[in-house]
This record gives sequence, C-alpha cells and structure tokens, in this order.
Amino acid sequence: MKQVQRVGAASALLLLEGWAAAKDRDALQKSYVFKNFSEAFAFMTRVALQAEKIDHHPEWTNIYNRVDVTLTTHDVKGVTERDVALASFMDQLA
Amino acid sequence: MKQVQRVGAASALLLLEGWAAAKDRDALQKSYVFKNFSEAFAFMTRVALQAEKIDHHPEWTNIYNRVDVTLTTHDVKGVTERDVALASFMDQLA
Amino acid sequence: MKQVQRVGAASALLLLEGWAAAKDRDALQKSYVFKNFSEAFAFMTRVALQAEKIDHHPEWTNIYNRVDVTLTTHDVKGVTERDVALASFMDQLA
Amino acid sequence: MKQVQRVGAASALLLLEGWAAAKDRDALQKSYVFKNFSEAFAFMTRVALQAEKIDHHPEWTNIYNRVDVTLTTHDVKGVTERDVALASFMDQLA
Repeated sequence: MKQVQRVGAASALLLLEGWAAAKDRDALQKSYVFKNFSEAFAFMTRVALQAEKIDHHPEWTNIYNRVDVTLTTHDVKGVTERDVALASFMDQLA
Repeated sequence: MKQVQRVGAASALLLLEGWAAAKDRDALQKSYVFKNFSEAFAFMTRVALQAEKIDHHPEWTNIYNRVDVTLTTHDVKGVTERDVALASFMDQLA
Repeated sequence: MKQVQRVGAASALLLLEGWAAAKDRDALQKSYVFKNFSEAFAFMTRVALQAEKIDHHPEWTNIYNRVDVTLTTHDVKGVTERDVALASFMDQLA
Repeated sequence: MKQVQRVGAASALLLLEGWAAAKDRDALQKSYVFKNFSEAFAFMTRVALQAEKIDHHPEWTNIYNRVDVTLTTHDVKGVTERDVALASFMDQLA
C-alpha cells in the first residue's frame, strides 16, 4: 500500500459533518445511534466489509444500539485521507 | 417450541406482498435485489439475527446483489405462521 | 423476560477463566485476541447471533484483531447468571 | 482489475480437494456442512469479507447448517485463478 500523508484532525473535520477531534491523540470520533442492536450490527457489518476492502479498520465500541467510532492511521500516528474516506463511507450508510 | 399449524402458501400469500408459492412444495418465495453485495449481505445479517432469535431459518441463495429466499417450516412440511412472520420481517427491512 | 438476581462479579469469576472484575462497576471483563480482523469479526458475528437470541448484549470494543468485552446486566446494575452464560458462550467460541 | 484467463474446471480441480465441476456450465461446486446455523453464518461472514476484498463473489445457498457454493468468473464465463484462490480460502476456513 502506498504511503499516506498525515493531514491532521483539524483539516479533516472541515470535510466532515458530526465528527470531532479526539482529546488525547490525532484521531476523529463520532457516535452513531440506531434503532436497536440488529440495525447497529448491520451497520458494523457493512463497515467491516469496506474496512477489509481498503485495508483500513476503525476502532469502535458497540453498546446495544450505539456505535462509537475512532478513526486514525496507526502507521503515521494521525489522521490521513484514509480516515476521511472511511468516515465518509460510514456517514453515507448511517 | 410450541407446535405450529400448517396454513399453506395460498393463505399465507393473502397476507404478503411480492411473494409467490413454490412450484414443487408448500413454500413461499421471493427475490430481493440490492445495490451491491455489501447491502445484500447486511440484509442477510439482519435476517440471520432474527432467524436465530425465533429459531426459524430461511433457505436462501445469494448471487452478488441478489438474495432469493424460500420459506417453509420443515417440521410440518409446509407454510406456517412462522414463515409469514419471517417474510414480514424481511419485507420491513428491504 | 423473567427477573434475574444479581450475583456479583466475585461469585461469577469463580465459574469463569480469564475474566476479571471491572474497576468502576459490577461487571466482567475479558480481552480476546485473534489472528486478524476477519477472525475477530466472525467471533463478533457469532456472539451477536447469540446475544439477540437470549436478548442480552455485550459492551465491546474492537481494534483490528482484538475484542475487549464488558458484561453486566443493566436492569440490575450488576453481574447476573446471564452474564455468566454469555461469557461461557464466548469462551467456547474463542 | 486485470484481465484473467479462463483455466476451466478440470484444471482447477487438480489443485483443490472436495470440489466438483458443475454439470451445466464451467464452474466449481462444493457443499460445506457445519454444526449449526451460527457456525455456517460465521463462515459466510468471513468469506464475504474476503470476497469484497478481492472483488470476487461466490454464488451460494444456505440451508441452516449447510452452505452450497458455486464459483465461476462471470466476465469470462468460466473458472479462473480467482475461483481457485477463493476456493482455497474457503477450504482453509472450514
């Protein structure tokens, strides 16, 4: 996979809606709330399929109908275009 | 699990839209078409969660964005209210 | 669903291996590590199917090949036999 | 995606175990049997993740604990190295 440049959370947030910068590191965060567990897990399944496809995976926590997502690119310890792409994909689904 | 009565495809079809009777046995059939594989598989995941919950599973074939479903209740070799319930659940999702 | 009694983490841990008590509330915790994301997500899918079946869901965080699980019963704000059952199910899978 | 050469079922079968040639077209077929629906669906989930990754999808039918798979490459109307790769992936999982 080609090298990616770190763009940083601040720049990334200009391109996204409803996301916030993490407090303790260069990462993007958002919480999605669904009707129930089934809907939340179907969302996670679609994101999982995309994550494997682009080889870029979220950090995420699921509690029943809620999915809290953190996106960052571990190779460069910060937010890259890959995170913006995955964030956009999630927003289109939800 | 409580015993279920066979109602038959003809009666069941009065309650459902877009379903048809199978030609070779007492069963309900429908084809769902989605935008892509990801959407089709997310549908299957939600149905799988419901199927396990109610302990009643579909026979289904997936080819990329298409899911062909057959519903019947093996215990009574025919269509029961369980099939109607699962069919309605699928229709609400799709 | 029938009412469940709180048994507490300490009692529950006597029945389980590799689990620990949460520091901040009455809950059970364990981290599972898999070969890759695919294996981790397949584990989550099987747990999701079971969770829907028994109507008792985990709190869990996934980071690539790792799944961190917290189990507690929200109705009684503590660990019950339902958490022990779900914990045992997970251990059998992993 | 790069063009792929058709290799044909007969050649492909030399490289695989437990697969058979389809009767009506150039395709590979195999049936997998699992302990229960949950195990079958977890297998399907892992294959789905891989299929999206390599952009090559199976035709498959699931009936409770059984998954019947047909592999062929629609672009060339026959079996290619992509089918062999996906078949090998499935065999490693199952």
